[in-house]
Parts: sequence; C-alpha cells; structure tokens
Amino acid sequence: MPGPDVHVLSAGSALPGTAVDNAALARRFGLDTLWEQWVEVFIGTKARHLALDLESGKITGTLAELAERAGRQALTAAGLGPGDIDAVVLGTATPDQLMPATVNIVADRLGINDVRTYQLQSGCSGAVQALDLARQVLLAGSARRVLVLGGDVIARFYDVTADLRSVAPAQLVNYVLFGDAAGAAVLSTEPAPGSAVVRALFTRLVGLGQAPGATLEWFGPVDRDSTRPAATEDYAAIEQRVPAMTGEVLQELLADTGWTPGQVDLLLPPQLSGRMTRLIVDSLELPRAREVSVVDEAGNCGNAIVFLQLEQALTSLDEGERALGISIESSKWIKSGFALQGGAG
Amino acid sequence: MPGPDVHVLSAGSALPGTAVDNAALARRFGLDTLWEQWVEVFIGTKARHLALDLESGKITGTLAELAERAGRQALTAAGLGPGDIDAVVLGTATPDQLMPATVNIVADRLGINDVRTYQLQSGCSGAVQALDLARQVLLAGSARRVLVLGGDVIARFYDVTADLRSVAPAQLVNYVLFGDAAGAAVLSTEPAPGSAVVRALFTRLVGLGQAPGATLEWFGPVDRDSTRPAATEDYAAIEQRVPAMTGEVLQELLADTGWTPGQVDLLLPPQLSGRMTRLIVDSLELPRAREVSVVDEAGNCGNAIVFLQLEQALTSLDEGERALGISIESSKWIKSGFALQGGAG
Repeated sequence: MPGPDVHVLSAGSALPGTAVDNAALARRFGLDTLWEQWVEVFIGTKARHLALDLESGKITGTLAELAERAGRQALTAAGLGPGDIDAVVLGTATPDQLMPATVNIVADRLGINDVRTYQLQSGCSGAVQALDLARQVLLAGSARRVLVLGGDVIARFYDVTADLRSVAPAQLVNYVLFGDAAGAAVLSTEPAPGSAVVRALFTRLVGLGQAPGATLEWFGPVDRDSTRPAATEDYAAIEQRVPAMTGEVLQELLADTGWTPGQVDLLLPPQLSGRMTRLIVDSLELPRAREVSVVDEAGNCGNAIVFLQLEQALTSLDEGERALGISIESSKWIKSGFALQGGAG
Repeated sequence: MPGPDVHVLSAGSALPGTAVDNAALARRFGLDTLWEQWVEVFIGTKARHLALDLESGKITGTLAELAERAGRQALTAAGLGPGDIDAVVLGTATPDQLMPATVNIVADRLGINDVRTYQLQSGCSGAVQALDLARQVLLAGSARRVLVLGGDVIARFYDVTADLRSVAPAQLVNYVLFGDAAGAAVLSTEPAPGSAVVRALFTRLVGLGQAPGATLEWFGPVDRDSTRPAATEDYAAIEQRVPAMTGEVLQELLADTGWTPGQVDLLLPPQLSGRMTRLIVDSLELPRAREVSVVDEAGNCGNAIVFLQLEQALTSLDEGERALGISIESSKWIKSGFALQGGAG
C-alpha cells in the first residue's frame, strides 16, 4: 500500500438493553418450541439486543445514543479527547433521521466540532467502507486521527403487533437475524501501544446486473399506507453467494499482503447468521486462525459488527500476529476486507 | 494544499419534468394571488422541478434515474466510459431506499463495477462533502478518476392531499423552497481540456451545541401513524446565520488561496432561496464576481445544487479565472466551500 501506515488505535462498542434470546422472541410472538428449534438449527443465532421494549413496541434508544457510547469508549481506550479528533465517519443503513445526518449529532454529543464529518449510507460492508474512508482521509494528509463509527438500529422495523404465526419465513427471518448495536474505532497515522497496523483494506461493488439480495425501504408520507414490507432478504441468494465471495476476498487479501493461509492468526468472518458464519469458517482453509465472531450473541448488527469484532481482535492480537477481516454486503453485492498486524504491546 | 492537483473535468445535471412555477402551486393547492406574491417577495424562488405529478400525487421519478442521467452527461462531457471510473461518490439526503444504497444502483445503471462506492447521507453541503471525499480518494492515490454525484428527490414528502390553506407558514415554506434534481462531476488528478483545478476545498461541522436549523424525518412502520411533520425548517435561524457563515467561508477560502476579493471572477453562492441568495451576494464584497445561481428556476435542490452551478461555471470559466463556491448546511450547521481556477481551454 502506498503512503504512510494507518493504525487502529482502539475500538469500542455499545449494545442496547439486555440480550433477547430465541425463547423470548417465541414467547412474545406466540410461536412454539418447534419454531425456536428451527431458528437454532437453520439460523444459528442465539440472541440479539434490541433498542425496543418487546412488550409495548416502544423504541428505547437511538443510533446516536449507541454511537456516542461506543465512540466515547474508543476515545477513552485510545487515551484521546474530543479535541484530538480531526474527522468523524459514521456508517449506517438506519440513520435516526434523514437530516441532520446522525454523525453530526454524535459529534455534538462527544464535543467534537470544527472537523470534517461523513456519514455513509451503507449495508453490511458499511463498517469496512467507513474504515476505508477514514484511511483515505489519513493517507490524503487531511487528518491525523479519525473517529470511525458504525451501527444500526433496526428496532423501528419491528412491528410487535404483527401476527408472526401467519408471516412467511422470508419475512419472519428478519425478526431473528438482526440486532441493534454500534461500534467505534480510532484510526491514525501514528501508532500507539497496543495498536494494530492496517496491511490491506478495500471495498468493491461487484453487483453489476445482479438483483439486490436485501432491501430496506424508507417510507415517507406518500407511502404511509403502504403494505409493502419495509425489509426483504433473498436468503437463498445470500446463502448461495456469500461463502464464495468470502473465499474470493480471502484470496485477494492474501495476495495484497503476501501472507500464506498458515500465517493467519485471527479471522473476523462475515456475520450474517450464526449458521452461515460456521459454514463459511469451515470452508476457508486457515489451519490455525482463531475465529472472532459476535453474531451468536449479538445477531447481525449491520454496520456495528466489524467494530465489535475489532474490539475483541485488538485485545487478542499479539505483536506481529496477523488478522483478516471479511465483510460481504448482499444488498447490492459488495466485497470488502482488511488485514491487520499486531503492533508493539 | 498537499499532494497532486485535483481537476474537475466535467459536470452534468438532470431535472425531472417541466418547471412548476408558483402560480401552478397556488392553483393546485387552492391558494390565492396574495400567497403567490408573498412567495415572490419573501422567498424569491420562481420555479422548481418535481418528480411528482401534482394532480395525482404520483411519484414520477427516482433519485437513481436522475443521478444516472446526470452521471452519463458528465461522463460524456469528459469523453470517458464506465470503465474509466474507479470510484463513485453520491451525496443525498433522500436516498431511494435505505438499502441498497442508491449509489450502487446508479453505478449498475451506468455499467460501473469493481470499484469503491460511497454514499454520503448529507444535507445542503452534501455536494461539497462528496467533492471533498472524491478529492481525499484521489490524493490518497486510491483512484485516478472519480464520478461524483449529488441529488435529492423530495417529491415523496409532498402530501398533495394536504389543505395548505390551513398549514402554518413554517410548514408551507417546504412546498415552495425545494426542487428535485441531480448533478454530477468527474474529478481526476489528470487535467483535460476545459477542466478547472481545485485550489481549495473544505467542509466543517460547526454546530456544537446548536439546535438543528432543519430536519427531515424518515418513517418506518412504527411511526406509520405519526402526525409529526416529515420536514421542518427554522427559517428565522437560517436567515440569521447563513449570511454570516457564508462570509466566514469566503474569508477562509481567500486565506487558503491567497486570492484577494478583487481577483474573484465567479461566485457560486448558497442557494437556499432566491431571496436569501440575493441578500448574501449583496453582502459579500466581491467587486467583479459574476454570480452563478440556479435557485430561481430550479429551487433549492439540495445535494444537486453545486453540480448545477458547476456545470455553468465550467462553461464560463476562462483560463486562469478564479471561482469560489460556498455551501452552508443548516441542518446541523456545516460550513463548506471550494476554489477553482480555469485551466487551458
């Protein structure tokens, strides 16, 4: 990679409320034990956190609140204050409002001002896009320390009045796959104790001519009476394509870094569902890589996932150790990945 | 500015349907001639284009369609094909869907693939943010030619069934201020005949502790029965702050470039409304600057505005001539601006 090294100084995360397990979902929606077992076997996600009171349907938190918590954690972990940050990037599919951009609300809450801010509208690869954008700004010499945030609050799409016993599996799956969370990281051209250096990082749209594998609608007044579902997943297309795309990103990261499969110490795989992550990890031949996954307990929390994984990875990555992160976006098919190497403790 | 020069090779624009003048709005909503005169005097915007059939309320176009048209125009004007572009940036407050990001749909329609794409969720400074992001990617050496897009389709927020005779002016103003449009530009580190070189470019959040001057809500199922307005404007705060902020950006651009007020040949001022643009231009002391404004006939078309201005500016900017563009975002108070200098014909 050209230009100066970019370092991940710290990471942070925030989850709303307590874990909602499959039994709790089944209870709330009057679904039976068989359904619960179906989720365990075919989805494999055990729990998720929701910014939602399941009983009343009341929204209990916002993306700005979660991102603020995660951002504050990352700043503290890096030993930095708001005045040390000279750009903020947030990736999300579910901003609190269309305007102002949530990134500016979060910056305000953190006391960050007089800096460039960017909010990416993005799906599951959004965290990597946000990290990549931060790296561009650092490489361009336009900033020295960038706070990168990612998160999603899908609670607003939960219709707790829906009778899930009569909902098709293609819709029902949205109630079990996703979770709410935010994460953060601080990137800088200057290393710090315990930081990791970025050895490769890319995101690439590869969806030419392909139908979206996932959609998320927004609805303004004109669509207020719409009966279209807000979210759709083409689970079959996702299950078919994501493992192969993951393998391709792995090969590209190995080529970019010159690392061999046997040299990879840590793997941060895609986190669509617990089951798919296990299928993917099994298919990649990385003999000694330790897996860093959060999907079993946090669900697919969109733009937050990679930061939750990063937080664990930074703790676990010893000096010189090599980590690969891979994220695939099925909405319009984006490949993304990154390679990190542990710095001096 | 550090690094290689960045050049604006071309620009393009797209407006939906035919111009909707104030008389047409008055007729449609049963408002009287006095109201029409009030709009002329206090807003000063004469017309706008809408991706909406005013009679039926039917949406007639999408952001993706407009951005595709504008993007194709910019590519053609630069003599480039889809394979020549190695990153795409779109700025918008009003994406067609939350997922997939509209930028990926536009890339698909233009035949662009295998590249980085970024979609910024942004208000009125979004076009400058998008240009700035493209510049970061170019300066970082991650791309050689970036297609930058900006646009908004606010037609979806038009409730044609509303009785505007009983709506408070603070809401009514949204029906006259805004228009739908998209614009595009191609940026590159390599100049071309007729291109302009970027001499300064910045965006900066300055909203610490200040209430948003404008908001735009999104509504999912949970808010489906909400009676909250989708869009609000604090017109008094905007009218009070934007002229002063514009003056500050002007001073900063002059300081960045070393240009004197008497050397500025072209001014691309903020375009909130026809009236405010006139107030602002009168307050800036630029003795010989020719004004490039589009708001009178196209309304405040959000993330498209700067590209519509750029398209005219590139035609008008002779070799060595100096242009300043200023954009202010009132949603959470962002200052942004850029300086261009005409290259060889």
